[in-house]
Amino acid sequence: MSESVTIPSTTEASTSIPSTMTASVLRAVHDVVLEERPVPVPAPDEVLVRVASVGVCGSDVHYYEHGRIGPYVVRAPLVLGHEAGGTVVAVGSDVDPARIGQRVAVEPQRPCRVCEFCRSGAYNLCPRIEFWATPPVDGAFCEYVVVPDDFAYEIPEQISDHAAALMEPLSVGIAAAQKGGIGVGDTVLIAGGGPIGVIAAQVARAFGAVDVVVADIDAGRRALAAKYGARVIDPATESTEDLGAHVFIDASGATTAITNGIRSTRSGGTVVLVGSADEIPLSVPEVAMRELKVTGVFRYTNTWPIARGLLVSGAVELDSLVTHVYGIEQAEQALTGEGATGGLKRIVQPGVRRVDDPAVAAAS
Amino acid sequence: MSESVTIPSTTEASTSIPSTMTASVLRAVHDVVLEERPVPVPAPDEVLVRVASVGVCGSDVHYYEHGRIGPYVVRAPLVLGHEAGGTVVAVGSDVDPARIGQRVAVEPQRPCRVCEFCRSGAYNLCPRIEFWATPPVDGAFCEYVVVPDDFAYEIPEQISDHAAALMEPLSVGIAAAQKGGIGVGDTVLIAGGGPIGVIAAQVARAFGAVDVVVADIDAGRRALAAKYGARVIDPATESTEDLGAHVFIDASGATTAITNGIRSTRSGGTVVLVGSADEIPLSVPEVAMRELKVTGVFRYTNTWPIARGLLVSGAVELDSLVTHVYGIEQAEQALTGEGATGGLKRIVQPGVRRVDDPAVAAAS
Amino acid sequence: MSESVTIPSTTEASTSIPSTMTASVLRAVHDVVLEERPVPVPAPDEVLVRVASVGVCGSDVHYYEHGRIGPYVVRAPLVLGHEAGGTVVAVGSDVDPARIGQRVAVEPQRPCRVCEFCRSGAYNLCPRIEFWATPPVDGAFCEYVVVPDDFAYEIPEQISDHAAALMEPLSVGIAAAQKGGIGVGDTVLIAGGGPIGVIAAQVARAFGAVDVVVADIDAGRRALAAKYGARVIDPATESTEDLGAHVFIDASGATTAITNGIRSTRSGGTVVLVGSADEIPLSVPEVAMRELKVTGVFRYTNTWPIARGLLVSGAVELDSLVTHVYGIEQAEQALTGEGATGGLKRIVQPGVRRVDDPAVAAAS
Amino acid sequence: MSESVTIPSTTEASTSIPSTMTASVLRAVHDVVLEERPVPVPAPDEVLVRVASVGVCGSDVHYYEHGRIGPYVVRAPLVLGHEAGGTVVAVGSDVDPARIGQRVAVEPQRPCRVCEFCRSGAYNLCPRIEFWATPPVDGAFCEYVVVPDDFAYEIPEQISDHAAALMEPLSVGIAAAQKGGIGVGDTVLIAGGGPIGVIAAQVARAFGAVDVVVADIDAGRRALAAKYGARVIDPATESTEDLGAHVFIDASGATTAITNGIRSTRSGGTVVLVGSADEIPLSVPEVAMRELKVTGVFRYTNTWPIARGLLVSGAVELDSLVTHVYGIEQAEQALTGEGATGGLKRIVQPGVRRVDDPAVAAAS
Repeated sequence: MSESVTIPSTTEASTSIPSTMTASVLRAVHDVVLEERPVPVPAPDEVLVRVASVGVCGSDVHYYEHGRIGPYVVRAPLVLGHEAGGTVVAVGSDVDPARIGQRVAVEPQRPCRVCEFCRSGAYNLCPRIEFWATPPVDGAFCEYVVVPDDFAYEIPEQISDHAAALMEPLSVGIAAAQKGGIGVGDTVLIAGGGPIGVIAAQVARAFGAVDVVVADIDAGRRALAAKYGARVIDPATESTEDLGAHVFIDASGATTAITNGIRSTRSGGTVVLVGSADEIPLSVPEVAMRELKVTGVFRYTNTWPIARGLLVSGAVELDSLVTHVYGIEQAEQALTGEGATGGLKRIVQPGVRRVDDPAVAAAS
Repeated sequence: MSESVTIPSTTEASTSIPSTMTASVLRAVHDVVLEERPVPVPAPDEVLVRVASVGVCGSDVHYYEHGRIGPYVVRAPLVLGHEAGGTVVAVGSDVDPARIGQRVAVEPQRPCRVCEFCRSGAYNLCPRIEFWATPPVDGAFCEYVVVPDDFAYEIPEQISDHAAALMEPLSVGIAAAQKGGIGVGDTVLIAGGGPIGVIAAQVARAFGAVDVVVADIDAGRRALAAKYGARVIDPATESTEDLGAHVFIDASGATTAITNGIRSTRSGGTVVLVGSADEIPLSVPEVAMRELKVTGVFRYTNTWPIARGLLVSGAVELDSLVTHVYGIEQAEQALTGEGATGGLKRIVQPGVRRVDDPAVAAAS
Repeated sequence: MSESVTIPSTTEASTSIPSTMTASVLRAVHDVVLEERPVPVPAPDEVLVRVASVGVCGSDVHYYEHGRIGPYVVRAPLVLGHEAGGTVVAVGSDVDPARIGQRVAVEPQRPCRVCEFCRSGAYNLCPRIEFWATPPVDGAFCEYVVVPDDFAYEIPEQISDHAAALMEPLSVGIAAAQKGGIGVGDTVLIAGGGPIGVIAAQVARAFGAVDVVVADIDAGRRALAAKYGARVIDPATESTEDLGAHVFIDASGATTAITNGIRSTRSGGTVVLVGSADEIPLSVPEVAMRELKVTGVFRYTNTWPIARGLLVSGAVELDSLVTHVYGIEQAEQALTGEGATGGLKRIVQPGVRRVDDPAVAAAS
Repeated sequence: MSESVTIPSTTEASTSIPSTMTASVLRAVHDVVLEERPVPVPAPDEVLVRVASVGVCGSDVHYYEHGRIGPYVVRAPLVLGHEAGGTVVAVGSDVDPARIGQRVAVEPQRPCRVCEFCRSGAYNLCPRIEFWATPPVDGAFCEYVVVPDDFAYEIPEQISDHAAALMEPLSVGIAAAQKGGIGVGDTVLIAGGGPIGVIAAQVARAFGAVDVVVADIDAGRRALAAKYGARVIDPATESTEDLGAHVFIDASGATTAITNGIRSTRSGGTVVLVGSADEIPLSVPEVAMRELKVTGVFRYTNTWPIARGLLVSGAVELDSLVTHVYGIEQAEQALTGEGATGGLKRIVQPGVRRVDDPAVAAAS
C-alpha cells in the first residue's frame, strides 16, 4: 500500500520538509548519540508534526540510567521523549489538509481501537497499545514525528510550545484526579512536590478541591508547591493523619509517604498511586474497615481536550514549571540534568541545535 | 417530655434571650402582619439561632402573591423565609454547649432520617420531610428559630451574615451542578440570569467547566452574568444550538428556553430543570436518539459544607448579589420588591426594625 | 487498494462462496424485489458472513410501509434487516484465518472509532456511524454480508442461528437496563409486551430486579409476558401508580403509557424511553420535585458479549420468541406479517428460498 | 425519660413477655455462662424482638477464643451473636403497634444518623456506630433484643427463621458485590468456599455474573460451592491467572489467595477484601499499570430489603447452609464447633434450652 501524503507545494511549512532529520538515540545505558534518520511519512490517518518542545520525564531518565523499566527493556536504539508539542507540516490522505500549519499537542500513544478496552473508552489499558519512548516504540527527541490525526490536538496561540509538551504530564494529573474522583469541596493530600505533584495540586484545585495539601520533605519543593497555591506540610515534622483527605495522590513513590497517606485518607476515600513505587505493605483492616479504595493511574484517556480547557481558562499554568531548555545536541545533558540542580522541568527543543545557557530566567 | 435547654447565665448571648419575639406572618394573599410569638425552645438535638439575615426567594413571593405553590396551600398563618444565617444562642440538652456563640448558616429542612431515602443519602426525597416556609412549616422571617444541631453549620468570619443566608440558593446551584454531573472541561449552558442562574454560573466554573454560557433575553441580566464570569448570549438573536453543551441548566422556567436548551445539549449530555416550569413538550426522538438525560433538582443534600468551602476558597462570591436590605417591619416591602426594580437579591434582617434606604450601595 | 482476502481452498465453507448472491431489496414503499448482487469482498479488517437468520424489526416494517423514519429516507434501493446471525466464510488480510467457520452474531453498526464519542466508549453516538438497513446503508436480507472483525461475535453451539439474530433486540434490552441502572432488588415496570418488552423483562430479571411488571392492554401479550416470568397488569383496569418502580422502561411508544409510567416511578428513579414515540407532555414539577431521570436508548455499545453470557447461562431465552420463519423469496411476506397475526418475532433465512409453512410449532 | 411501650393485653405475643430472660454471656476467653437478665424495654423508636435464630459468625468464635478483635477488647461481660431473626413482641411509643407479631430479620447496627457519613448514606462508616456483639455492645445470644424500628425488617412466611438470621452474612455478600460493582455478564473470582464465599457466589450470580469461580484448597468446600452453582478450582493445582476476572472477592483472608486473586483480575477490575487478613504485600505496578481498584467492605448499608428480595425471588437460598442447631444452654458448644467438623453454618436458638442432636439432616 503506498500512502498518499498531502504536501502542499507553496507554503513555507511544506517546502521545508527535508528527507532526513536529526534524532537523539539511546543506544544503551549512558549512551546517547545523534543520528540522521529519514523523516517519517504519515499514513492515511496520520499527520506529520515538526516537534518544537519535548519535556524530559523521569521515565526517560530511568531508561538512560538503567536501560529498562520493569518489563520494558531497551534492546535496540530508542528515541526517548513522549511529552511533545509542535506544528503539523503534512497530512495523510484521509486527513483534512487544512490541518497543515496547526500548532498541536501530542497524545503519545496508539491504541488498537478494536479491543474491549478501546471500545469501552479505556484505551489506555489496550493490551496492544504502543506508547512513545517505551521499547521498541520511538519517541520525540527528533525533528519530526507522525501522529494519528485525532491524537494531535490543535492548540490556540495562548498555549506555548513548552506548555503544549507539558500537557502530557498535565494529563497524568487529570487522570489521577479522575481516578480519585476529586469532587467540589474535597480535601486532597498529595505526597511529593515534584512536577507531577505540583501539577496534581493545580488540577485538584481545578476539580473543585478546597483544601489541597502537598507533603514533601524537601523545603525547596514545598516552597514551589506553595507558589502554586497548595498548603504545604513537612511530613518529617507534621502529621497529616487528622487531615481526613477525601483523596490521597501519591506522586512520591516512597513507601512511608504512601503508608502515611493511606492513614490520612478519610473512611470511604480514595488512594491514587501515581509514583513509581515497587511493593508496599497494605493493611487489609485499614482498607476494609474504612472502605478505602486503592487504585492507580496508567497514563490517561481523552484528557487533552480537558488539559487544553484548563490552560485556556487559566485554571492551570504550566510555563513556569520549565526551568531548563536544551537543543537536540544537548539531549544527553537534558537527561542527566547536570547543572540543573533544583530545577523542575527540563525541555528539549529538537529544532534547535544548542542553547548556550539552559537555565530559564525565572518569571516574575 | 420536658426539654432541657442549656442557657448559660453569664454570657451576653444567653442573657439576651427574651421569652417572645417578633415574627412576620403571612395570613393570606397580600396580607402580612407582625406578630409577637414565643421564642421556641430547642429540643435535645436542636440549637436556637438568633436570625441575622434571611434572603427573599421567588417561592416566598409566590406564596405572598398566590397563597399556594402547587399542592402546598397556605391554610394557616405562615412565617415565610428559608434562606437564613444567624448565631447560636442556646442549645438542647444533647448538644455541645460550646456551640453557643457560633455564627451559622441554616439548612432549612428536617428529614425523618429513617426512611429508605434518608438512609441512602437522598434525604431531600424523604416523604415526611419538613421544609421551612412551606405550609404548614414556619420559616425564618422572625427573630429566633430552632434548627437540628447538624443542620446549623458553623461559618468562619469571612462569610458574612448575608452570604450565610445565601448559602441556601448556593446549595440549589450546587445540587444542580451535581445532578448535571458537571465535569472538568465541560461546556455548560444556563438559561436565565436571575439569582439562581448567576449562582449556577459561578458553581459551574467551580466544578471545572471551562465554557459557561448564560442565555437571557434581558440585557441587564446578561450584563450581570457577565460580571460573574459567564459568557452571555441573547437567545432572541443568537442560537446556542451548535454549542454542544455537556450540561444544560434551566433556571428560567420558560418553555422556549428549555426547548432551546435541550437542542443545545450534546448527545449523551444532561438537562437539569431548576426553574419553575409547568409542563413542557418533550421530543422523545431527541431524548432517545441522542441519549439525553433530563432531570431536575428538588432542594439539596449535604451541600452546606461544600458551599462553605467554595465561599472560603473564593471560588464563589455571594455578597455582591445583595441589592436591597430590609428590617422586619418591612418584610412585606421585601416581598413586593416595590422600589427594587432591577435588583437581584433582597434580604430581611429580623433583628432590625427598619432600614431607611433598602438599596445597597453597589460594591466596586 | 486491493484487499487481500483469505479464501482457503479446501474447506466446504470457502469453496461454496459464489460471486453473486440473492438480496431482497426495498425499492420504494411496498416495493420489494429480489436482486442478484455481487458477494461483497471483506476489507482487511472485515469478515465475510454467510447469513443464516435475520429478524424482522419494527423499523424494517416502517421503512416498507412509509419509506422513511424521521430524517432517514429511502432514496435508493435498500436491503433491510439488521438482526443477523450466520457463519464466517472468509476473512480480510488482517484477520485471523482461524475465524473461518465460526458461527457468529453480528453487531450491525460501524462507528468511526476516532471521534470523541467513539474514544470514550459511547460509539453509538458517533455522528459518522453507519447502521444497517438505515438509508443508505444496506442490511442483511441477503446471503452474504461483510462485518468488521470485532463486530462479528463468535457464539457457541448452544446458541441457535435464530437466537444469534435476536441478540440484536436483546442488546436493545440490555442497553435499556444499563441506562436505567437496574440494580439488584429493584422493581421494574415495562410498558408494552411486544418483543422488546418481553426481552426487557427477561433482562431486568437478569440484572437482579426482583419485581418485574409488564403492562399491556392486550391480553395475549400479557399472557406471553407472564410466560417469561413477568408479573402482568392491564393498564386499562389496574393502576401502577403505587408501584414505586425504581426503573420504568417504555417499550410501547404510547403517550398514555409513558405518562402513567412516569407517575409509577419512585422518586429518584429512572425512565428509559425505548419505544418510538414522538412528542410527549412532560410535567416539569414531576421530574424536578421527584428528581426523576428521563432518558432513552439509541442502540447499544459493547452488549454482544453480555448478550452471549446471558444466553449461555440461561438467564435469557430467545428461541421461543420466534413464531414465524421465512425464506428469502418471502421477505415481503415477512415484512407485511400477513398471516402471522398474534405472532411475536418473524425471521428471514436468506439461505433458504421458501418455507412452506412459516408458522413455527410452539415449543412446549 | 420514661419510655412508653405498647404491650397489648390480649394477644398471645404480648402476654408472654416476661420481666427477665436468659442470656449467654462471654465473661472472658473460654468462659461462657448463662445469666438471667432483665428483658430490655424498647425506646420510643424501637421494637422488642423475641429472638428465634442466631447465626454463629467467625467473629463470635474469635472473641470466644481470643477475647479481642484488633482494637475491640472484651473488658466486660458480653452477649455474642449478631445474625438474628425473630418476632416483634412489643413496640415503643412512636412505632406502629401493628408491627407486633411481625416476623423480622435484624440489621444489628445503630448509626448516629446525623454525621456526614450517615447523612450521605454510608452509615456503616459512622464513627459513633454501635454494632452488636462488638465490645461493649451486647448481641443476640439471648431471648429478647431491642432494635430500632427501621432496622427490624418484616419478612414473609417463605423466609425461615434461620434464613432471617443469615440475611446478615447475605448482606455482607451483597455489600461485597456492590463494592465490586459486579455487573451483568461479569466473570467473578471468589477465594474461599466458607459461608461468606458460598453466599458471595450466589450473590454474584444474582448480580448477573455469568462465570462465578470459587477457589478453595479444601475439596469438601469446593464440592459445596459447586452445589451452589459455582465453577470451582483448586488453587494448589490450577492457576486462575488467565481468568481475567472483572471482580475478585477475597473471602479467605489468606495472603497467597489474595495475591493470586489480584493477578487473576483483569485490567480495570476490582478487588474486594472481605476476609480477615492482616497485612499484605501490594505490588504498586500491578495496581497502577493495570488500574486495579483494591477495596474492602465494612458491614453494609441498606442491604436487608435487597436480601429479602433475593430470598423471595429464589435467587439466593440460605437454609441449606445451616448444618448445626443449638439451644441457648449449648451456646458455648456452638462457639467451639465441637462435633461439628465439616459443617458450614451453626445456629443458636435462644428460645430453646437444648437440642439433642445439633446436626441438621441434610436436605435432598
